[in-house]
Amino acid sequence: MISLTTDFGLKDPYVAEMKGIILTINSNAALIDVTHSVDKFSVRMGAFVLMSAASYFPRGTTHLAIVDPGVGTERRAIVVQTERDFFVGPDNGVLILAAQSQGIEQIYEITNPKFMLPKVSSTFQGRDIFAPAAAHLDMDVEPSEFGAKITDAVTPQFNTVERKNSYLIGEVLHVDGFGNIITNINEHELTQSKNVNMKLPKATLEVVLGKTYAETKPQQPLALVGSHGFLEIALNRGNAAEKFHIKTGDKIEVRPT
Amino acid sequence: MISLTTDFGLKDPYVAEMKGIILTINSNAALIDVTHSVDKFSVRMGAFVLMSAASYFPRGTTHLAIVDPGVGTERRAIVVQTERDFFVGPDNGVLILAAQSQGIEQIYEITNPKFMLPKVSSTFQGRDIFAPAAAHLDMDVEPSEFGAKITDAVTPQFNTVERKNSYLIGEVLHVDGFGNIITNINEHELTQSKNVNMKLPKATLEVVLGKTYAETKPQQPLALVGSHGFLEIALNRGNAAEKFHIKTGDKIEVRPT
Amino acid sequence: MISLTTDFGLKDPYVAEMKGIILTINSNAALIDVTHSVDKFSVRMGAFVLMSAASYFPRGTTHLAIVDPGVGTERRAIVVQTERDFFVGPDNGVLILAAQSQGIEQIYEITNPKFMLPKVSSTFQGRDIFAPAAAHLDMDVEPSEFGAKITDAVTPQFNTVERKNSYLIGEVLHVDGFGNIITNINEHELTQSKNVNMKLPKATLEVVLGKTYAETKPQQPLALVGSHGFLEIALNRGNAAEKFHIKTGDKIEVRPT
Repeated sequence: MISLTTDFGLKDPYVAEMKGIILTINSNAALIDVTHSVDKFSVRMGAFVLMSAASYFPRGTTHLAIVDPGVGTERRAIVVQTERDFFVGPDNGVLILAAQSQGIEQIYEITNPKFMLPKVSSTFQGRDIFAPAAAHLDMDVEPSEFGAKITDAVTPQFNTVERKNSYLIGEVLHVDGFGNIITNINEHELTQSKNVNMKLPKATLEVVLGKTYAETKPQQPLALVGSHGFLEIALNRGNAAEKFHIKTGDKIEVRPT
Repeated sequence: MISLTTDFGLKDPYVAEMKGIILTINSNAALIDVTHSVDKFSVRMGAFVLMSAASYFPRGTTHLAIVDPGVGTERRAIVVQTERDFFVGPDNGVLILAAQSQGIEQIYEITNPKFMLPKVSSTFQGRDIFAPAAAHLDMDVEPSEFGAKITDAVTPQFNTVERKNSYLIGEVLHVDGFGNIITNINEHELTQSKNVNMKLPKATLEVVLGKTYAETKPQQPLALVGSHGFLEIALNRGNAAEKFHIKTGDKIEVRPT
Repeated sequence: MISLTTDFGLKDPYVAEMKGIILTINSNAALIDVTHSVDKFSVRMGAFVLMSAASYFPRGTTHLAIVDPGVGTERRAIVVQTERDFFVGPDNGVLILAAQSQGIEQIYEITNPKFMLPKVSSTFQGRDIFAPAAAHLDMDVEPSEFGAKITDAVTPQFNTVERKNSYLIGEVLHVDGFGNIITNINEHELTQSKNVNMKLPKATLEVVLGKTYAETKPQQPLALVGSHGFLEIALNRGNAAEKFHIKTGDKIEVRPT
């Protein structure tokens, strides 16, 4: 099985060209889209979405993830082998959060032209290098056949949660399509808390730490631990990110009470 | 075969997590998206879209449909068995129009933890309860194994068409992506009519009752019976809902002439 | 394998109804979306996207492509057999660029009701005529069984590149989701060039003819030969079409230097 995560959008032929190439090489491949609506060039969002989704797929899945502003430059193409799965994409960090969460075993640079299209373009290596690599990995080609082992893959630097007085200082990892604000504050920081006091860039809130959205009245805010184990700020049946003018990367201070 | 209908959007990892779980349980499942772009929290739109699509799928399809503002509350999770298919989702009405159109045989509450993920979140039961249920139904698990039979499932209350003098008083069921205005007025009300006089909230029209969009000049309005048997108002190569400022739920009065 | 290209969007049940019908007729069909986000009624964009994607699919693929403002009129439904694949859709040109690029062998009108749904609507022949035709072609039904051979299929008239003094005068074929401006000027016109001088409707540029986006500074423009062999104008990590106020069909004058 091959999962696909890109910032290519669904309007253009790009995703279909990758799928066509995969199925030309490997007619039995099962293809599942994670998303093709990563914000353009946002390696960070791609890394977050892939990390969230990857471990819900069957063991042994090959995850193809391409958010690649450096396409055609010296940035490397890599295969990451974890204890569970394979990851294929550019060496810019987009694969690494997901791979780390599974336990990285080896990383290989993709240099063997045997596993690329005969003509490699400088602008669409998703189709010409990464899709063929994923197709071959799904056919049990050994990752070591793609190229040499490397140990210096790019690791994305996300801020970690800090403590200052009674506050946890974190940031917004992702704003989802419902407007839910997903932070990088782990549920383990919140045990025993009933409420949270929060300082957002443009608002200060004291809200209940609930279990689910419908615990407040419609359009009222609450905090909860979301389905991936992170502190989340939401409005019941509403869009919290719009209401509080929040975007990915914003700083957030939280005091559990 | 499993069809999927949600309001989760295509930007986030949510749909992919459900698909990953289904394929982990049932590696042979064939997955077909109906849509993931139901208006957020619009049980009504989800119910309409699912009803439109369900009976074009092969007999025996399991339809997974999740528009679920009450996730994590006391609202039940259900399986509906019809004469033709299975439906899985929250007990809030989203499944019922489609199921009624096929003939409901039994409804079961989903309570058996054997068919759920080991850890059930309060905010994403699509992944933790509904997707596993669909995966198991597609593997021929009997619906009675999920839990007890119920007879009081929530049925959505949509307005029915009324008559007043020579007018049929109905409402807008759906505005599609072309801007076509789909009403709840059935084609059987319109036999023998050549024109229709219509009172919309912000316009009154007298238009031909045609067969297809291209019967009028570009950007000109007409009425017709759409592909699901309902009266529809359209502009040839244009967007009728924008032109007439129409949204789902608007009242509409129609006099066939 | 069946590829699908339409302007139906992903919000409505239309695409799912076609897939349901295909799988009801042909339960083994593998379905791959090219896009359902062709601009509404834009035969031209549909034709371009399909041409770009088609030849990356496995040989023998059936390509179903529907952008059909004339649905329900006298416009014909056709099957095009090429040296490589099959194409199914309306006779308005949407299939022809892709088919020509593969070498057209025969074109047949679809008239045989044996391969249509029992009741054909006037507004959704994608579901009632084209999807069943694609399902049957994928099951190796001979294209000649659908109806009579025709020789006068509609061919889209796109402007070709002209020369005037030292300028190539072409047009914008497509603006992709990144805002890259894809022209109809072929790479063969540009050999040996290092820069291009361009007159756009609202800007004049002198830019380097590069190999990939990251060759300039972020937000700076460059020209390059894109992944389908056409001259493309782009901003590194930015949206060129927005910056230069470009839309599909705009005239563009280019002087390689």
